[in-house]
Amino acid sequence: MRVENDGLGNIEIPEEAYWGAHTQRALKNFHNTGEKLDKEFIRAYGYVKKAAASLNGKLGFLSREKSDAICKACDELINGALSGQIVVDPLSGGAGTSINMNINEVIANRATEILGGKKGEYLVHPLDDVNKFQSTNDTFPTAGKMAVIVLLKELVSTVERLQAVLQEKEKEFWSVMKPGRTQLMDAVPISLGQEFGAMAEAISRDRWRLYKVEERIRTVNLGGTAIGTGIAADKRFVLSIVNELRNISGIRVAKAENLIDATQNMDVFAEIHGLLKSLATNLLKISNDIRLLGSGPNAGFGELELPKVQAGSSIMPGKINPVVPEYSIQMAISVLAHDVAVNFAVSSGNLELNPFVPLIVHYTLKSLRFLANAAKSLERYIPEIKANKDKAQENLLKSETVFTPMITAYGYERVQKWIKRSHEERKDIWEIAAEETETKISELKAKLLGKHSTGLGL
Amino acid sequence: MRVENDGLGNIEIPEEAYWGAHTQRALKNFHNTGEKLDKEFIRAYGYVKKAAASLNGKLGFLSREKSDAICKACDELINGALSGQIVVDPLSGGAGTSINMNINEVIANRATEILGGKKGEYLVHPLDDVNKFQSTNDTFPTAGKMAVIVLLKELVSTVERLQAVLQEKEKEFWSVMKPGRTQLMDAVPISLGQEFGAMAEAISRDRWRLYKVEERIRTVNLGGTAIGTGIAADKRFVLSIVNELRNISGIRVAKAENLIDATQNMDVFAEIHGLLKSLATNLLKISNDIRLLGSGPNAGFGELELPKVQAGSSIMPGKINPVVPEYSIQMAISVLAHDVAVNFAVSSGNLELNPFVPLIVHYTLKSLRFLANAAKSLERYIPEIKANKDKAQENLLKSETVFTPMITAYGYERVQKWIKRSHEERKDIWEIAAEETETKISELKAKLLGKHSTGLGL
Amino acid sequence: MRVENDGLGNIEIPEEAYWGAHTQRALKNFHNTGEKLDKEFIRAYGYVKKAAASLNGKLGFLSREKSDAICKACDELINGALSGQIVVDPLSGGAGTSINMNINEVIANRATEILGGKKGEYLVHPLDDVNKFQSTNDTFPTAGKMAVIVLLKELVSTVERLQAVLQEKEKEFWSVMKPGRTQLMDAVPISLGQEFGAMAEAISRDRWRLYKVEERIRTVNLGGTAIGTGIAADKRFVLSIVNELRNISGIRVAKAENLIDATQNMDVFAEIHGLLKSLATNLLKISNDIRLLGSGPNAGFGELELPKVQAGSSIMPGKINPVVPEYSIQMAISVLAHDVAVNFAVSSGNLELNPFVPLIVHYTLKSLRFLANAAKSLERYIPEIKANKDKAQENLLKSETVFTPMITAYGYERVQKWIKRSHEERKDIWEIAAEETETKISELKAKLLGKHSTGLGL
Amino acid sequence: MRVENDGLGNIEIPEEAYWGAHTQRALKNFHNTGEKLDKEFIRAYGYVKKAAASLNGKLGFLSREKSDAICKACDELINGALSGQIVVDPLSGGAGTSINMNINEVIANRATEILGGKKGEYLVHPLDDVNKFQSTNDTFPTAGKMAVIVLLKELVSTVERLQAVLQEKEKEFWSVMKPGRTQLMDAVPISLGQEFGAMAEAISRDRWRLYKVEERIRTVNLGGTAIGTGIAADKRFVLSIVNELRNISGIRVAKAENLIDATQNMDVFAEIHGLLKSLATNLLKISNDIRLLGSGPNAGFGELELPKVQAGSSIMPGKINPVVPEYSIQMAISVLAHDVAVNFAVSSGNLELNPFVPLIVHYTLKSLRFLANAAKSLERYIPEIKANKDKAQENLLKSETVFTPMITAYGYERVQKWIKRSHEERKDIWEIAAEETETKISELKAKLLGKHSTGLGL
Repeated sequence: MRVENDGLGNIEIPEEAYWGAHTQRALKNFHNTGEKLDKEFIRAYGYVKKAAASLNGKLGFLSREKSDAICKACDELINGALSGQIVVDPLSGGAGTSINMNINEVIANRATEILGGKKGEYLVHPLDDVNKFQSTNDTFPTAGKMAVIVLLKELVSTVERLQAVLQEKEKEFWSVMKPGRTQLMDAVPISLGQEFGAMAEAISRDRWRLYKVEERIRTVNLGGTAIGTGIAADKRFVLSIVNELRNISGIRVAKAENLIDATQNMDVFAEIHGLLKSLATNLLKISNDIRLLGSGPNAGFGELELPKVQAGSSIMPGKINPVVPEYSIQMAISVLAHDVAVNFAVSSGNLELNPFVPLIVHYTLKSLRFLANAAKSLERYIPEIKANKDKAQENLLKSETVFTPMITAYGYERVQKWIKRSHEERKDIWEIAAEETETKISELKAKLLGKHSTGLGL
Repeated sequence: MRVENDGLGNIEIPEEAYWGAHTQRALKNFHNTGEKLDKEFIRAYGYVKKAAASLNGKLGFLSREKSDAICKACDELINGALSGQIVVDPLSGGAGTSINMNINEVIANRATEILGGKKGEYLVHPLDDVNKFQSTNDTFPTAGKMAVIVLLKELVSTVERLQAVLQEKEKEFWSVMKPGRTQLMDAVPISLGQEFGAMAEAISRDRWRLYKVEERIRTVNLGGTAIGTGIAADKRFVLSIVNELRNISGIRVAKAENLIDATQNMDVFAEIHGLLKSLATNLLKISNDIRLLGSGPNAGFGELELPKVQAGSSIMPGKINPVVPEYSIQMAISVLAHDVAVNFAVSSGNLELNPFVPLIVHYTLKSLRFLANAAKSLERYIPEIKANKDKAQENLLKSETVFTPMITAYGYERVQKWIKRSHEERKDIWEIAAEETETKISELKAKLLGKHSTGLGL
Repeated sequence: MRVENDGLGNIEIPEEAYWGAHTQRALKNFHNTGEKLDKEFIRAYGYVKKAAASLNGKLGFLSREKSDAICKACDELINGALSGQIVVDPLSGGAGTSINMNINEVIANRATEILGGKKGEYLVHPLDDVNKFQSTNDTFPTAGKMAVIVLLKELVSTVERLQAVLQEKEKEFWSVMKPGRTQLMDAVPISLGQEFGAMAEAISRDRWRLYKVEERIRTVNLGGTAIGTGIAADKRFVLSIVNELRNISGIRVAKAENLIDATQNMDVFAEIHGLLKSLATNLLKISNDIRLLGSGPNAGFGELELPKVQAGSSIMPGKINPVVPEYSIQMAISVLAHDVAVNFAVSSGNLELNPFVPLIVHYTLKSLRFLANAAKSLERYIPEIKANKDKAQENLLKSETVFTPMITAYGYERVQKWIKRSHEERKDIWEIAAEETETKISELKAKLLGKHSTGLGL
Repeated sequence: MRVENDGLGNIEIPEEAYWGAHTQRALKNFHNTGEKLDKEFIRAYGYVKKAAASLNGKLGFLSREKSDAICKACDELINGALSGQIVVDPLSGGAGTSINMNINEVIANRATEILGGKKGEYLVHPLDDVNKFQSTNDTFPTAGKMAVIVLLKELVSTVERLQAVLQEKEKEFWSVMKPGRTQLMDAVPISLGQEFGAMAEAISRDRWRLYKVEERIRTVNLGGTAIGTGIAADKRFVLSIVNELRNISGIRVAKAENLIDATQNMDVFAEIHGLLKSLATNLLKISNDIRLLGSGPNAGFGELELPKVQAGSSIMPGKINPVVPEYSIQMAISVLAHDVAVNFAVSSGNLELNPFVPLIVHYTLKSLRFLANAAKSLERYIPEIKANKDKAQENLLKSETVFTPMITAYGYERVQKWIKRSHEERKDIWEIAAEETETKISELKAKLLGKHSTGLGL
């Protein structure tokens, strides 16, 4: 154990720890939740600190020596070597101060080592050097948005691949005719391919939404320091730091025009999460549809043959369950829940700051991961799905609603009577229709069940 | 009472009612919730029915006589004359069928009257004529989206005016210096105008979001009939109906490319409502900030003088309460709740249809109204807000955090010690700072509290 | 128009209105939401005002004449005659002050008339007489809880009747054997009666929960006035008012031990609504199960024949849809949404008061109504449901999982192989099982599909 | 790597892993979410498996040797030695099957070792021995409820201690007089002790609620196997297994009367979580009140001196922030979000099973932990809070609403005029009141600000 003093008194810190007094206090103040900071967030924070040190070096506010040492330490945060040292809880209080301080302290101690000192000697100071011209209140949301951008890109690619596998199935199942169902009840014909085509179309909207929203998250408040007025920061730093960050990180951030607003208002996270939850609703719909179409398979809809990715039951042999759609549903429900948390926290900002920005960033990143999880699992699962054409055809023949097109010639009420008669007389509806229309059953079937029955209009 | 028969049996209908058997059954099946269909939705449905009748007339599927009579009846729905006849509950089951049927029946009976018949005679048939080539499943979401477009436009204007009044205050309060607050604790200086400027900036984002989203809601599935394949509809009708609707209504709808998708997937409502809830979070933040800044006013923050729009209390004389921000908060909380309902319902679509589209449309329209309510109330309230400059100045002088800029010259820890010393010695912090920095108090105040202290950087 | 002055200035009021200046201002301050105050809430508020007037009369704080006049006016509120005069929006700001004032003013004007005066003359004063020793802050939550108690009782009865109709079906369907389904996939045998029995059991828990919770809502803060200290109220009034209210209303309210707590903390509404949402989850599950079991009916599960309560579709003749379960689902989803609003508002209380108590009370009462709506609709719908025994039997024979009990004799993996073999060889699973076990098919069926297969254990 | 075959084909498993083929497939099927199974849940599952092995041994369904080996392996799960082997994701699909199988396989392999075999040899079979007479569908919810009971007990103790520290403050601050505030505006006097007393009272309700609910969660469906009919289990096992489990675990579980219901309906989790969210709302209210009362401290309410548990800011020296209340708020918001997830999942059960029981159990346990975190952090924080008596007194003198009791003698409107006059004439309200009432200021203060002003009534 080594002892450090942070103005509130002495505190013991494990010898090997790179963090310092502030972090150690935070570990006491906040019970561990089991949640972990996203590694892209830690990496982004590394870029922020590196950009600051680099710029402060260029502007002469840090010696070249210190600037270089900090930059090297930041690289170890960026490449993950030091990320095990970032131990403060993602849901800690203090608007992220303890997380920023954890990062400042780890960088300061590592940079101190690089300069030949020992942990705790602080040849590089966590506040006066590493945090120079910065505040938690500008660095934290900036790092948060950068991590969102990175994960958003990944999600867009994943969603794109999901769309592609759905479109494959659209083609593969194009000629598998089956009854459509509205309100779970037999309705008019559709092809299984059309059903997968509709899924693909919905997912393509998500792809577009998520692609477009990136531009909304790009404006950051770095340089604004405590409340967006740039207090205690040199003006040259304030004006150049976002450029520096963009160059160093390769992530296309831009300086917010109104730094005060960008520091206190987190609505852009509500907006983005609002789009994430839209994707969640589509994943729920798609996963439920796969569950329904594959249900049974013998005593259910049974139009899909679900992949046997694992044994379904620990007691019922031979059972295959839709485990991947179920997993996707659990991911999606979680995202809908995160949405509520994000709404609550974004709404709860007060005056110059939103104290709950850690929660906002945490659940947004978590949702991005969960949605990618769901999409990736479905991406591998869907190609293995097969159509059960026989069952699809059998189901189609059973649906009485396929007579709907006859209303144009015979009127709604008359067709309704055929169906009623078929029930009352327990007689096949095709026979009755043949009688009533004086047409052969085979002709009727050709007319009502053929591929053109799912084409556009009569 | 007159008696009608709808294939399920006879049913009694009030003599004066324009609705028919289906509507009457729906009134029995669904207990009244007290909710009302939005009048813009009824109007939009009127346009849909009129467009269909008009096109069917042109294409020769309806006689000119019938077509004209239906169009006239629709006009009475559009201008509100018949809207009292639309009595089915907005949250009725059946994916909106009963609402569509209520509208079909009212139009049919009114058109029958126009043609010289009596209610119940159905010279114009609710299904074979009024509903010709249509289904609930395409007309309902189409009317829903049209109503959203109309209310969205109104909301954008309202939000625009709210932004304007906030910007007025930004100017008016520009030179009122006061302490910023982060995590509710005294922080560095800011001007009251900057605070209102940040609010205006947040609202301007909402304006932009809502303006941009209109294009997403514009694609409708009219012509798709039951499941988006256009079954039982003539192809010429399917291809032209959306154009006809756009011309007749003046609302810029466009035909969805994939009608099957547009019939079953309601994610676009989740998306739009996701943007509505973003506005709700901003209204909550702004309303809470006004509550905080006006709190006390004597034993609180007291930097704003709140308008006396009504007596605040039924027992405490002289009390003025922030009743309008409280109302706005209740509107915003309601919208966050609607968001959860919309998410749930959008996620719960099955196969070719979402049976809960009535709920989705209802709460979306309600949220649009509630947000406009909140914005309009604030728009009238905010101009009456006054600054309490004396209290703002008094508060500023009390904030110890205004010494933050001194960290660039003296370091974080040393400034921290001054403050600690001031507490321990119960001595004025300005005196201590003057001592420590060998500067006059007046010079320090000029440096730390002047207008430039809120400018960008040092 | 008549003119009144309330200290904030003159204001015009419609001649015929019983309300006064405060109400008139509120109508301007808060845009109309379309929401309506629950009539049980208005009635409860009538009881509160009557109890206060009665007690103040007895204690000599009001003349007998005034006391009697107020009591008579209150009776007209209680019996509904005056309820059209309560016009302030249920979601108005001000913690309910405008609603309390609306009620005070209406009573004062009506009592003034009773005493021979004219509206606006205020022979009885809204504040000094009608509101004597009261505050919005104690009367509003008290009236809210009373209305909850009344509606809760109704809901408990409704839920009880719903349980009864489910139990009827349990008996009726007891011997209809069918495959159970887990994760929507064919599983082991169950009887349709057992399925309805499980629904009844779930609902019986709700009944018990709602019955028990009444005692939690019973403690009220009447007498606490502004913040629960009873300020500005005579001690004898404070001590006796709740007794008086209980006697006059017949509703079993009890005085809270800690009036300060009961004035500011609304967690008991979060608790109650937490139980309401539990009922909502059960209604969702039950409604979805009915939808699934009745799905198709030909190309779906089809084990239930759904009642034809109305035509299902405006385009597809003969379609019968599960419209009542769909309605119930929309009621339940609304309740889950209200739950989020209530959570948010209950969490948002500050210090001595929760300013959002109007929203809390409003959505709680609304949820009580919506749940009763759902339960009542199902109560009429479920008795009409029929079993499709043939389909149930056919489905049962198709389920391969019925071989599960064989694992005790042959082991999980061997039974799994039979099923695999049946798929590979496209041979009937019963034949294979007969071969493998050297038993006749008829014996196997007797063993695996008989009623005892759904009894407890082997 | 060793190779196992599970009927779906060969699969490679790490040499050292105790899990088997099913687990290995699950690791591929479900992307890692970063979530961890609660250790109390794994422990509870160990008890379930141990009870089954023990009972099967006694009843002769397992050899004594196998039964003993399984029991020993279970002990290592219970004491945590094997818990690192439970690697399947808590949010995996399959209704928990993969988690049950993970546990079965780990126990089978460990028991195999105990019997002298090697991993993969399966002297003890995961299904036919470890899982004997069980299903995921009864073991999973049973283990889930047991873990809830354990964590609920801990939470009740924590909440009890939180109540105690609040009551300490109630006593300590009893005589600190200050203005109450309603709607954040100055209101009538209250003592700081009374404020903490109200917090304690609210928390005491939570304690009672959580204590009482334990009885609701106690009934388990163990013995019901796949769907609650006990299929494929010996009747003696079905009847005795819950007793065995209670004896072995010391956790007071009871057999559900209707096992079918208890297998498929998860409303009891919605109920429990409904109570957890009630606690969350109270923690939010309390944390926000502490934030408000400690706000400033100089330019805010400042009636509380907040503990300096860590430096508040990385840029503003001397700043002390309410970091622990902020942490509690983030815990509470998370619980409100989990509530939405639980509602959604509980509502989404289908027929004989709820496939989302893993999510339901996971978030319920997480909420129990988060609430305990919040309560424990507050429990340590609150004792360090100090009253700022001077500020409290100063604030009290500033509040104009303290004149409220004068309405009983002078009427509401007259007192309102004094306050208006004081504003217009910019004259001290006490002077005006003295004039108007012909009383000395000192007498007025004694009357209106004394301790009795917060007692019950006049």
